[in-house]
This record gives sequence, C-alpha cells and structure tokens, in this order.
Amino acid sequence: MRPKKFMRDTLAVKTSHVLPPDTNHHGTLFGGKLMAYIDDIASISAYRMARNPVVTASTDSVDFLEPIKVGDAVTLEAMVTYTGRSSMEVFVKVTSEKLLTGEKAIAALSFLTFVALDENGKPAPVPEIVPETQEELWLNETAIKRAEHRKVRKGESQELAKFFKRA
Amino acid sequence: MRPKKFMRDTLAVKTSHVLPPDTNHHGTLFGGKLMAYIDDIASISAYRMARNPVVTASTDSVDFLEPIKVGDAVTLEAMVTYTGRSSMEVFVKVTSEKLLTGEKAIAALSFLTFVALDENGKPAPVPEIVPETQEELWLNETAIKRAEHRKVRKGESQELAKFFKRA
Amino acid sequence: MRPKKFMRDTLAVKTSHVLPPDTNHHGTLFGGKLMAYIDDIASISAYRMARNPVVTASTDSVDFLEPIKVGDAVTLEAMVTYTGRSSMEVFVKVTSEKLLTGEKAIAALSFLTFVALDENGKPAPVPEIVPETQEELWLNETAIKRAEHRKVRKGESQELAKFFKRA
Amino acid sequence: MRPKKFMRDTLAVKTSHVLPPDTNHHGTLFGGKLMAYIDDIASISAYRMARNPVVTASTDSVDFLEPIKVGDAVTLEAMVTYTGRSSMEVFVKVTSEKLLTGEKAIAALSFLTFVALDENGKPAPVPEIVPETQEELWLNETAIKRAEHRKVRKGESQELAKFFKRA
Amino acid sequence: MRPKKFMRDTLAVKTSHVLPPDTNHHGTLFGGKLMAYIDDIASISAYRMARNPVVTASTDSVDFLEPIKVGDAVTLEAMVTYTGRSSMEVFVKVTSEKLLTGEKAIAALSFLTFVALDENGKPAPVPEIVPETQEELWLNETAIKRAEHRKVRKGESQELAKFFKRA
Amino acid sequence: MRPKKFMRDTLAVKTSHVLPPDTNHHGTLFGGKLMAYIDDIASISAYRMARNPVVTASTDSVDFLEPIKVGDAVTLEAMVTYTGRSSMEVFVKVTSEKLLTGEKAIAALSFLTFVALDENGKPAPVPEIVPETQEELWLNETAIKRAEHRKVRKGESQELAKFFKRA
Ligand SMILES: CC(C)(COP(=O)(O)OP(=O)(O)OC[C@H]1O[C@@H](n2cnc3c(N)ncnc32)[C@H](O)[C@@H]1OP(=O)(O)O)[C@@H](O)C(=O)NCCC(=O)NCCS
Ligand SMILES: CC(C)(COP(=O)(O)OP(=O)(O)OC[C@H]1O[C@@H](n2cnc3c(N)ncnc32)[C@H](O)[C@@H]1OP(=O)(O)O)[C@@H](O)C(=O)NCCC(=O)NCCS
Ligand SMILES: CC(C)(COP(=O)(O)OP(=O)(O)OC[C@H]1O[C@@H](n2cnc3c(N)ncnc32)[C@H](O)[C@@H]1OP(=O)(O)O)[C@@H](O)C(=O)NCCC(=O)NCCS
Ligand SMILES: CC(C)(COP(=O)(O)OP(=O)(O)OC[C@H]1O[C@@H](n2cnc3c(N)ncnc32)[C@H](O)[C@@H]1OP(=O)(O)O)[C@@H](O)C(=O)NCCC(=O)NCCS
Repeated sequence: MRPKKFMRDTLAVKTSHVLPPDTNHHGTLFGGKLMAYIDDIASISAYRMARNPVVTASTDSVDFLEPIKVGDAVTLEAMVTYTGRSSMEVFVKVTSEKLLTGEKAIAALSFLTFVALDENGKPAPVPEIVPETQEELWLNETAIKRAEHRKVRKGESQELAKFFKRA
Repeated sequence: MRPKKFMRDTLAVKTSHVLPPDTNHHGTLFGGKLMAYIDDIASISAYRMARNPVVTASTDSVDFLEPIKVGDAVTLEAMVTYTGRSSMEVFVKVTSEKLLTGEKAIAALSFLTFVALDENGKPAPVPEIVPETQEELWLNETAIKRAEHRKVRKGESQELAKFFKRA
Repeated sequence: MRPKKFMRDTLAVKTSHVLPPDTNHHGTLFGGKLMAYIDDIASISAYRMARNPVVTASTDSVDFLEPIKVGDAVTLEAMVTYTGRSSMEVFVKVTSEKLLTGEKAIAALSFLTFVALDENGKPAPVPEIVPETQEELWLNETAIKRAEHRKVRKGESQELAKFFKRA
Repeated sequence: MRPKKFMRDTLAVKTSHVLPPDTNHHGTLFGGKLMAYIDDIASISAYRMARNPVVTASTDSVDFLEPIKVGDAVTLEAMVTYTGRSSMEVFVKVTSEKLLTGEKAIAALSFLTFVALDENGKPAPVPEIVPETQEELWLNETAIKRAEHRKVRKGESQELAKFFKRA
Repeated sequence: MRPKKFMRDTLAVKTSHVLPPDTNHHGTLFGGKLMAYIDDIASISAYRMARNPVVTASTDSVDFLEPIKVGDAVTLEAMVTYTGRSSMEVFVKVTSEKLLTGEKAIAALSFLTFVALDENGKPAPVPEIVPETQEELWLNETAIKRAEHRKVRKGESQELAKFFKRA
Repeated sequence: MRPKKFMRDTLAVKTSHVLPPDTNHHGTLFGGKLMAYIDDIASISAYRMARNPVVTASTDSVDFLEPIKVGDAVTLEAMVTYTGRSSMEVFVKVTSEKLLTGEKAIAALSFLTFVALDENGKPAPVPEIVPETQEELWLNETAIKRAEHRKVRKGESQELAKFFKRA
C-alpha cells in the first residue's frame, strides 16, 4: 500500500530581513530575488514529502500583489498540496511584515511543481498527501484542475520551443 | 499621437557562466537563480521600452525544459512583445550551451508583465510596440489571449489572498 | 503600566538549504555563515518584541555541537526569552535535517542580546516578556543569571579593549 | 618532543571595505557579517598553527563595542593564543577605521576555539604555542582560565541540547 | 590543416542592472566588480573559440573612462580578436546606458589573454581566427604588436616576482 | 608646503580563504574574483594616502603567474608607491599559501592608479609619498616610467573609444 503523509508535516518556513542588496532603486524587493527564495523553501517542502532528490519541473504564474520594502521582514510558508505519482504541487504563501508596526500583507502566492528522482535520475514514486484542515482540503481539491492546466501549458511550451528551434 | 517603438529596439541579452554557487547538489542551475536572471534581463528590456521606472507585476508559469549544468553558459534573450496602456509583456528565451562542444538547448521560455510607473508611483503610459519579423508578429498576436488569461488569473489570486486573510 | 508580550509572539523561523558556497572543503557549513544566519533571525525576533530599531549588543558563546553537511536543511528558531528595560535576550536553536531521511540533530544553541533604539539612536524601553510553557519559563528564569554573567564579561571586554589601545 | 611555534607566526590579517550589502538600515555592519569575517580569518590562523584541517568548535561571547559604518574599513587581526592537545584558542581583534580621517576604534574582541582533525576526521595533535611579547604572554596565561570556563559551558550546552531533544 | 573560425562566432554579450551592492559610496560601480564581469564574459568568448577549458593568462591595462551609476545598465561585448598557438586575445567593450533616457557611453575597453588547456592542464592548440569587418580587421592587425608587448611585460613580471621572492 | 607620508603608512593587507564559489571547474580562483579583491585592498591603501574619496582610474596589466587552488589562502598586500598631483599608483602583491603545508607562491603582481576627488567630484591634491626601504625606493623610482606609459596608453584608449563611437 502507498505510504501517506500529512500536509502539515511538509510545512517549511523562511523569514528574512529585506536588505539593500535585494532591492531595486525604489527600495523594494526584486521580483527575481523573491522567486529565488520561493524556489529554495518550496524545494525543502518537497524533500520533506519525498525523502528523495527533487527538481523543479515548473513554477506557475506569480502575481506580485504588493511591493515589499527594504527593512521589512518577508515570510515564506511552503506546503505540499497535491501528489501525483512522482510529482508534487507545492503552495507558497509570501507575507510581508513592517517590523516597526507589525502590519502584515500578502505579497504573493505561488504554486510550483517538483518531481522526485531515484538514484538513476528517473522519476520516483512519492507518498500520498493527506489534507486535514478546511484550508488544506480546499488547496488539495483545486489542485487537480491546476494539474490539468499545466499539462496543456507544457504542451504549448514545447510547441513554442520547437517553433524557436526552427527559427 | 502615441509614440511607437520597434520590438528589436527592446532586445536585451545576458550570457553568464553557471558557477558552483548557482547550482544544487545535482550540479544543475537552481530554478530560483534562473528566475532571478530572467527578472533582471526582462526588466532592462522593459526599461528600454518605457524609459520610466518599471516593476514586475507578474510572471507567467515557467516550464524548465532542460537542466543547465555547472560549467555551461546560459544565455537569456528578452524582448517586449506587447504593450497595454501602462503594462508591457516581456518574452524571455533561455538557452544553455555546453562550452566544450557548442551544443545548445532551449532550457526555458517565460513571459513576464511589467508596469511603468510615473514619479508618484502610479501606472504611466508606454509607447506602442511594433513587431516586424514573422516571429515577432506571432508573439505579438498571441499576446492578447495571454493578457486576458492574466486578468482572470489575477482575479483568482486576489480571491485566494482574501481567503488566506480571513483564514 | 508597562505593556506585555507573549514569548510565542516573538518566534521567528528560518529554514534554508545548505549550499556549496556556504561550506568549507569538508563540505560542512562554516561557523561564520551560521553566525550570520543566527544574527538575522534573532534580530527579526527582537523587532517583533520591540517594534523599534534594534542593534546586536553581544552574542554569547556558541558551541558547534554537530557539523551540518551540504545538502542538509538548517532550521533556526529564535524567541525573546528575557527583557530588561531596553535590552532583550534572544535564544536561537539551530537544528540540522538530513533531507533524504528526515534525521534531525541539534547543531548549536545561542543566546544574543539586542538593544532597542529610539529615533535619536538612544536606548528605548521594550515591553515585558511573558513566558507560558514549561520550556519558556525555564529559559526566562535562567536568563537573570546569564544577564549578570554578561555584565561581568562586558567589563572584562572593555578592560581588554583599553589594554589594546595602550598597546 | 612536541614541536613548537611562535605566536607571531600564526598572525593573519584581513582588511575590507564595509559595503552597502554588509549593512543594516542604520548603515552599520551586521553583527552576523562580522562574525563571518571573524570565523574566516581565525580559521586561517588556526591552519597556520596546525597545518591540518580545522573546524570551529566554539566561539566565545562577542561584545560589539562600537558600530562600524558603511564606507569605513574594518581590520581583523587573528593569532593563536593557546594550544591544548588538539584544540587551539584564537584571539581576534577587530578595528574600524574612518577612511576619510584615519580615526580608529576597537569594535570587537573575540576568542574562538578550533580543533585540528586528522584524515579520519578525528582530533589531531597540534604544536605548542610560544608567546614572546608582554601582550602575547598575557593572552597565553589567561587562556587556561578561559579553557576551563569553556569545558563547564559545553557541559551546560549539551545538557540544554538534551533538554530540547526531550521537548 | 588548422581549423578556422569567424570572429563574430565568438561574440558574447552580458547586460546587467547596476545594483547597490555593486557600488561604492558615490553610488558608482566598483572597478573590481567590473573586472569580474569582464573576466566572466571574456572567458565565455574564449571557450567559444577553443572548445577546451581556458584560463586567464593576463589582463592588459584597463582605463575606466567614465563612472557607471547605480540604476544604469552595463553592457559588455566580448570577441576573440587574435589567436596564437594556444593563446587567444579577447577584446571587451563596456558600455553604460542610462535606463531612463537611453543615453550611452563607452565606460571601458579591455584586452585579456586566455590560454586553452588540454586534459592534462597543458596548453592546447586553438583554431585560427578569421576577421571580416573593417573593425575586426583593425583589431586583428593591431594584435600582433600587443602580443609582443605582453611577452616583454611577462618577462618583467617574472623578474619582479623573483625580486620579491628574494626580498 | 606639501604634506608627506611614509609608504609603509599606506600598507593594507587582506588574507582570505579561497572558497568553492570563487573558483572555476578546475577548482582554481577566477581571474575576475582576484581582480575584485585587488581593487578592494588597493582602494583602502589609496584612502590611507589621500584621506579623500578615491576612484580607480586604471589598472595596469596583470599577469597571472600561478593558479590559486580552492582551500588555499590568498594574501594581498597593497601600498602606494608613487603620487602625482591628484593621482596615486598602488602596487599589489598577491601570494598564495597552501594551508596544509605553508608553501607559498607569488601568484600575481599588479599596479593600479587611483585619483582622489574633492567634495565636487573634481581631482584633489594628495600628499607626497616617502619611500624608505630598498624595495620601496625601487618601486618609487620605476613609477615615473610607468606613469608615462599610462599617459600614452590612455590617449590610445580614448582614440579607440572614439573609433567605436563612430562605428
Ligand atoms: C503592479 C502594480 C503597480 C499594479 O497596480 P494596480 O493598482 O493593480 O494598477 P492598475 O489596476 O491600474 O493596472 C495597471 C496595469 O497593470 C496591469 N496589471 C496589474 N496587475 C497585473 C498582473 N498581476 N499581471 C499582469 N498585469 C497586471 C493592468 O492590466 C494594467 O495594464 P494596462 O495599463 O496596460 O491596461 C501593483 O500591483 C504593485 O505595485 N505590485 C507589486 C510590484 C512589485 O513590487 N514587484 C516585485 C515583487 S517582489
Ligand atoms: C569540535 C568537534 C570536532 C569536537 O569533537 P569531540 O568529539 O567533542 O572531541 P573531543 O572531546 O575529543 O575534544 C577534542 C578537543 O576539542 C576541545 N573541544 C571540544 N568541544 C569544544 C568546545 N565546544 N569549545 C572548546 N573546545 C572544545 C576539547 O577540549 C579537546 O581539546 P584538547 O584536544 O586540546 O584537549 C565536534 O564537536 C564537531 O565536529 N563539532 C562541529 C564543528 C563544526 O561543524 N563547526 C561549524 C558549525 S556551523
Ligand atoms: C579618473 C577620472 C576622475 C579622471 O578624470 P580626468 O578628467 O581625466 O582628470 P584629469 O585629467 O584632471 O586627471 C587627474 C589625474 O588623474 C590621472 N589620470 C586620469 N586618467 C588616468 C588613467 N586612465 N590612468 C592613470 N592616471 C589617470 C591624471 O594623470 C591626473 O594625475 P595627476 O593629478 O596626478 O597629475 C575620470 O576619468 C573618471 O571618473 N573615470 C571613472 C572612474 C570610475 O568610475 N572607476 C570605476 C569604473 S567601474
Ligand atoms: C597561463 C599559463 C597556463 C601559461 O603557462 P606557461 O607554462 O607559461 O605556458 P607556455 O609558456 O607554453 O605558453 C602558452 C601560451 O600562453 C601564452 N602566455 C603565457 N603567459 C602569458 C601572459 N602572461 N600573457 C599573455 N600570454 C601568455 C604564451 O605566449 C603561449 O602562447 P601561444 O601558445 O599562443 O604561443 C600559466 O601561467 C598559468 O596557469 N597561470 C595561472 C592562470 C590562472 O590561474 N588564472 C587565474 C588567476 S586568479
């Protein structure tokens, strides 16, 4: 029987100061720096699920809802929300916090897909994820639709790649 | 009359060595590091279009088609492919190159949206983009559909953000 | 009346991948890199207490109990454990985690002292900390002895500094 | 007979510009960045003593006596001050220098302990250190007391670690 | 017969944002950071020529003609301009661009020499370079004189090194 | 009367571990990373001379005589060797050290020119340098010829820049 794991057991959290080298000349965090943080914490969450090497297969679109200022703290919370055979969807919630007031805002939300690999670099099966809370159940149920979208999208990406190879 | 600019005038190119600090323990480039490069070069392309400060509004999904190895070169080519009133779609093509053989592969393709800001941080109008080649025309024509997708998606992101605020 | 805050409200967590650039040629995390992480997360905890700018006044001794290997995750948990008038003691627990097995070890434990500053850069009063759990109570009660040790030690440091100024 | 080495032969010096990425939003050097510099230069001093791989076993408390501003130079001087069988105490003196005036201040003083390792990662014997100057003699003589303190303290750390493992 | 390659086939381009961590307290790019960029892009150009591992043998003098400001883009264009048996001269042109106006300036010009190495780390033959345009021809013809200068200069460097070894 | 300063009062030293992120895939230090270190330490030496802001005007050619391996220490010693009205020549000697044996080698030698700037960013007068030892006298006397070479060379650089502006 396929092993199971609770969603909460894959939670990974990263809080960091937003420092000058991480910001543009408006003094707000670069989109690219945030993307790097998102990938780091999401991959740790995926490892906690798979206990096998993992690679990023794709990142879904990210809307940057609010700028994050230098001096703020940024907190990323990552959790596996869905598992296929060897692939895992990871959800990352990004919150900014003004350190002098405690005021918080949701700055971005992101879904990534990781694939677990065996010792030969081939996709390896992962346990089944078990949601518990209302929020976890919702994230898990809506994942199937997102997975389908991604399949369509990847086909389009490969078409696009072929188009550019010919060009 | 609204000013115009040729697509090719917004082209920006970045080639870099993939170095050990940029890689995971498979020796391949981190998804997050690549996202940071993509954001940097795309924003330069957007500046060349707008000649006003710009911020990343969103990145569309990215499929990582091929891993990029330590010691390879990675080349990013960015170009504005569509303009709304204040927003610009930037397309980034990522190519890896084995430096010892010259073998190339398309490693990822990505679309981002930037918004130009005026001196008060409010969205500012940008010139109209003019495609010329076959490839440019195709990228420009298909952009409208992608822009519509993004509107729907941002609505969903905001819904999701509200959901998590209540939670 | 002096405002109060619960210990748990100052908890700050940072999980990161240990990457090749963070390691020596045994492939284990540098003591100095870990000290940098400790300072970053502890200062966020101190901010959550003070809601005023804070600076590191001192770090107590740190024993590196176990090496942390490249590819492991490292998790830092910081919490304010004691408050003077303007100073705060922050406790940081550092845990390593083998990502392929889930095996964990306590790698280091550290106490730092931060001072809150007002707008003129002068020490500013901080709320009183309120411990709740067994563990929190223990950390809080033992803090007074550590604070006394630090006073003695700082006197010695200043003596030493004078000695070297003359030299 | 056990080989000997002069203290001055283990002296290692590092001077660096304090740059914006090394500073917090008061424009002063992060405690954590300084700790990373201290560890780097102290380990070079320990290597010069042991001529064997070394790891940081512990850092004693550090009092940050003076902030170091962006644009200043920071100079670290490290020297082995005491040797046990396989362990070495390294003393690091940190001086800041205003580059536009030449004004200097002692910013911090720090003692670290390194352990030399043989090819199997086991503690390996190190030569005996020989102090010469007044200052060196003083540092060497006071080292024994500091070494005893550390033994007591490590016992406490291990107790604490056990306490948290149970928790 | 010795293989040949066109100069244009060795062109490598790197455009980057000048960010705060790359600048001194005048807000202009460090000479040393620019030298690091120059070496990175020049080595990629040398790899495209040699398709063998390469090392920097020397960098000629560099005149920094114009400061480059934080927020500007900097573009480096590298091309192999001359080939000996195992050595290659690479020319790098550095242009700054004010992103809000499009104004450009030549900030520096630089010549480097790389040597191709075989699997034993010994100098390995490289193809012959073929210039085509007016500009390429001029760079190629003037290279012989620069190569002679370098031979003389390396002799002087080695003399100097001997002088300091004795000292 | 023009103020004077001894050469030895401008000495600045930087020793660092060569770490994996600083190296290429032969495991040897990048030329570009070394150039960045050279610029940092040389500018501190120039500040100690001028006690005014300084910028890098040029770096002379650098011959990389010996590779520096990961795990080695690298030591840079910088000293002002000549002063014009507002310009200073700084000499940097780069030594590598195998930390497990103590074996040393001169890896590179480099001359840079810095210009002191007043509060308006205009060249500002610097004190006169006074050599004392044999070695210092030799470096100072040979500087005049190097300064003349640089004038000629800068003229050529400007010609070259004009050539590329027209192109
Ligand atoms: C991007 C931002 C300026 C948009 O502000 P807004 O109040 O939504 O502005 P508007 O609704 O007037 O939209 C302005 C334009 O942006 C477009 N836009 C807004 N959000 C978008 C998104 N997520 N994706 C794509 N386009 C978007 C709109 O369609 C509109 O386009 P048009 O002018 O071409 O018709 C704002 O959301 C913001 O500041 N986000 C944070 C940006 C940031 O800091 N990025 C780095 C994150 S680490
Ligand atoms: C340091 C370490 C090798 C010691 O191992 P150990 O099994 O405790 O070794 P021993 O008990 O035989 O002690 C060896 C020597 O180290 C000294 N030592 C051990 N722990 C110490 C500490 N925390 N502080 C000071 N000295 C210490 C002992 O006194 C002994 O000294 P001596 O040989 O001069 O008499 C081990 O704890 C370790 O690997 N720690 C992690 C190191 C690391 O990765 N640092 C970077 C952290 S990010
Ligand atoms: C260096 C700089 C200030 C010189 O300005 P300038 O208008 O040429 O100044 P001047 O002609 O009055 O020369 C001033 C001094 O600099 C010296 N100098 C100028 N260019 C030089 C060069 N390339 N190499 C060596 N010395 C040079 C002159 O000989 C003169 O020396 P002196 O006062 O001792 O007689 C200017 O070229 C500059 O700002 N360059 C960019 C610096 C920078 O940003 N560096 C980092 C690049 S990433
Ligand atoms: C570069 C290096 C491989 C040359 O080795 P070498 O024993 O001098 O080799 P050779 O005398 O056979 O010369 C090989 C070629 O390099 C050229 N060369 C050597 N030193 C040079 C220099 N300083 N500048 C320009 N060309 C140089 C020779 O002219 C010869 O050219 P050719 O084959 O086209 O005729 C060697 O000096 C070295 O390893 N240096 C360190 C490189 C390094 O680590 N760089 C980064 C430093 S941080």
